[in-house]
Amino acid sequence: MRPLTIDSLNPALLKVEYAVRGELAIKAENYRVQLQDGDRSLPFDRVISSNIGNPQQKGLDQAPITFARQVSTPHSTQPRRDSPSALSQIAALTEWPALAELAPDVFPKDVVARAKELLSEIGSIGAYSHSQGVPFIRKNVAKFIEERDGYPADPNHIFLTTGASAGVSLLINMLISSPTSGILIPIPQYPLYTATLAQHNGQPIPYYLDESKDWATSIADIEQALDKAHKANIVPKALVIINPGNPTGSLLSEETMTQIVHLCEKYSLVLLADEVYQSNLHRPSTHPFTSFKKIVCKVQSHVPLVSFHSISKGVTGECGRRGGYFECHNISEPVVALIYKMVSVGLCPPLAGQIGVDSMVRPPRAGDESYELWKKETQATHDALASRTQTMSDRLNGLPGVSCVASPGALYLFPRITLSQAAITAARQHGKEPDVFYALALLDETGICVVAGSGFGQKEGEWHYRLTCLCPGVDEYVGKLEKFHRGWVEKYGEA
Amino acid sequence: MRPLTIDSLNPALLKVEYAVRGELAIKAENYRVQLQDGDRSLPFDRVISSNIGNPQQKGLDQAPITFARQVSTPHSTQPRRDSPSALSQIAALTEWPALAELAPDVFPKDVVARAKELLSEIGSIGAYSHSQGVPFIRKNVAKFIEERDGYPADPNHIFLTTGASAGVSLLINMLISSPTSGILIPIPQYPLYTATLAQHNGQPIPYYLDESKDWATSIADIEQALDKAHKANIVPKALVIINPGNPTGSLLSEETMTQIVHLCEKYSLVLLADEVYQSNLHRPSTHPFTSFKKIVCKVQSHVPLVSFHSISKGVTGECGRRGGYFECHNISEPVVALIYKMVSVGLCPPLAGQIGVDSMVRPPRAGDESYELWKKETQATHDALASRTQTMSDRLNGLPGVSCVASPGALYLFPRITLSQAAITAARQHGKEPDVFYALALLDETGICVVAGSGFGQKEGEWHYRLTCLCPGVDEYVGKLEKFHRGWVEKYGEA
Repeated sequence: MRPLTIDSLNPALLKVEYAVRGELAIKAENYRVQLQDGDRSLPFDRVISSNIGNPQQKGLDQAPITFARQVSTPHSTQPRRDSPSALSQIAALTEWPALAELAPDVFPKDVVARAKELLSEIGSIGAYSHSQGVPFIRKNVAKFIEERDGYPADPNHIFLTTGASAGVSLLINMLISSPTSGILIPIPQYPLYTATLAQHNGQPIPYYLDESKDWATSIADIEQALDKAHKANIVPKALVIINPGNPTGSLLSEETMTQIVHLCEKYSLVLLADEVYQSNLHRPSTHPFTSFKKIVCKVQSHVPLVSFHSISKGVTGECGRRGGYFECHNISEPVVALIYKMVSVGLCPPLAGQIGVDSMVRPPRAGDESYELWKKETQATHDALASRTQTMSDRLNGLPGVSCVASPGALYLFPRITLSQAAITAARQHGKEPDVFYALALLDETGICVVAGSGFGQKEGEWHYRLTCLCPGVDEYVGKLEKFHRGWVEKYGEA
Repeated sequence: MRPLTIDSLNPALLKVEYAVRGELAIKAENYRVQLQDGDRSLPFDRVISSNIGNPQQKGLDQAPITFARQVSTPHSTQPRRDSPSALSQIAALTEWPALAELAPDVFPKDVVARAKELLSEIGSIGAYSHSQGVPFIRKNVAKFIEERDGYPADPNHIFLTTGASAGVSLLINMLISSPTSGILIPIPQYPLYTATLAQHNGQPIPYYLDESKDWATSIADIEQALDKAHKANIVPKALVIINPGNPTGSLLSEETMTQIVHLCEKYSLVLLADEVYQSNLHRPSTHPFTSFKKIVCKVQSHVPLVSFHSISKGVTGECGRRGGYFECHNISEPVVALIYKMVSVGLCPPLAGQIGVDSMVRPPRAGDESYELWKKETQATHDALASRTQTMSDRLNGLPGVSCVASPGALYLFPRITLSQAAITAARQHGKEPDVFYALALLDETGICVVAGSGFGQKEGEWHYRLTCLCPGVDEYVGKLEKFHRGWVEKYGEA
């Protein structure tokens, strides 16, 4: 009997890298278990997972809704769910509809009506739905898109998904038709893209975002990347744009977006628009969000577009429900039918996620019983996130050898750190990338888990890390980062 | 601008077939929309989806819990959720914990305690969990396996999944290391296997189950298939066993299972045990379920085993929550680490599904407030399903040209239909497989949607279909099948 070894497995999977949940995250999880088991030998008393945009994470205690409470009641330690979101209430009622009568006056009227309406369309949340998602919810998504963009959307071209990741992964699997197929991805990028390309034996075609211009996307740089790919006999199939950016938080102007659409026309590229952070805007008056759907419609382009959205981000951050959708535009019916066939093998997305999508695209409206509270809380969340992002980037910029673009969107900062030769040598001696070495030291000393820039991609010789702006007590948090960094500089010297 | 065409996409995906949600299911869905829109021209007033084991489906009105009510109150039209399962109550409380105080005396004490315990481990069901699943729930799964089998289970080797399908798909993706890699699959099989093999460019190595022996698995037939594969230069990597069978409902004896384990040793095969129907047993005294984990441990084998389970089947049938797990046994740590890396790219399985797994592996115990009702209802569900399966197979066997093994397990029957030459000719003239032609006619005339045998695989020149035993009013339902079949024989003659 031969044992099952790594060598006998699909070699493509060995190439997959996903730093967001890689070595650092695994080490952080081990620290968490150590602390839970009563170990008092660590130099911190809790682990802060700043590696992933997980707003409702336990221990963060600044989940979106709580933001509101924190603003008015500093140092509150109440668990978030004492003040439930409309979605939580709807979800509870779809679990057990009779609760509306068993607990009268507990649920707002609009919530009861919404749950009743959803259940009449869904039947039971314990049943499989249509593989593409509940038709009623897809219609609501289409209305949301129409109201956002001012152009029609077709519910039959919308697919509800298990988070945005599942949709991205499927589209990449479809587009990679041979080992020479490539997909243009921004650098730095969210590592789902490189991971999925590796899994499906496709070639990443990297194009670089310009940090000196607040991480702007440049058409010239994309064309340069296309040229390089062409010389390497790689056939570009699609262009990925992440807007607002992850990890950069940057927002594209309509002008750049129009140029990108024309570029996709010129090179026959499918446009994959990752727009999951579309409602995380910190300075919307100067940095608004515009969807690619709107631009493609506006310039009457025939560019095939797939745009992704998720309930895991925004101000609710309902990650654990696993919900999202993608919209196909200018995609032919046979291709849509193929997508349908592929999603049907997975049966259907989770109903909890589908209901989450419905709540995201149909928030309470003025006049609804839930509206005032919802409005107040979401506004407070937006304000708090914007102010934290600004405070954090200001203070990071005050550190020696650190420069940080103040993200206008998303949930992250991506500071650049210059590292001394001594630090780089020490890292190499430990067999680590220098930024990984920095992030490991940060974790060991402070319990703060970030993701090293090498997981997202960066220019040769540059070092960064990504941290979320979802942090408990910004002063204490940034204080720890500052103290660690000053200690590091003391130890290894300035670059 | 070239439009995006099918030819430019991954050719592997074009080969994917998934009949359970294919042509027939799409047509059935269209009929359902027609009926909803008030169309009265159809010869039926509702569509009955017998194509998929979806116990809680709307319109079936015999979802598991309701079975109990139907037994005592025939023709009840109350919706199921008036009598919530403990899982629904727990899920409602994890959505909004304060409900326990806001609606006192509404929730059983054990349910309140369970929800509190789960939340203290999970934090928020809106947050990402550990990619492998909440550690506490994995520990409970391990205890369940230990109690079931009498052998230890390791929570670190258990992965919670988005239904069993997601796990099967990942394992197949991992095992197919080149286009000559093959996986042994039973014929007939659940088409997830052929679909996933096609998607990942692997070769199915079919071995036939013996209908004349109640769909028994024969070691000789598997060895014959291995021999054929060897001659075709296909490298067998794994053996899939579905026990209880889908679509056959058959159950393996411990003797056969032991032989299978030895066969896997002999040929260095990974054993993939699909055991999602393990609690759907209609005649447990003569046809009990034994897990492969137990046999592998009992004979102290080193065969690498991955066994799959799901919350979508059993007596609760919580399909829409998308929950399941797989256990790795005799799988080396580097391979487990690779699996972890792959699941981490998808972030985590839905929390609603994870909570569903917890309820499945920890049902109420004697002495708990929920126990008596749970016991009564699940027993009634088991009894009703067993009696329906028997009644349906008896009556199908009474039809000319139909023979049907009375399944001892799972949710299906897989009757064989002999078709006359006239019927076969008519089918070919319509460009259809004869069993698909039969199933389409059945749908058009009665609104009953089944899956043609060709979707599962069958011997050359044989025809079958799969139907679920989850049907509203067995008399009316089988009556429709009988009337249709007699009309068919009248039209096309006996074989």
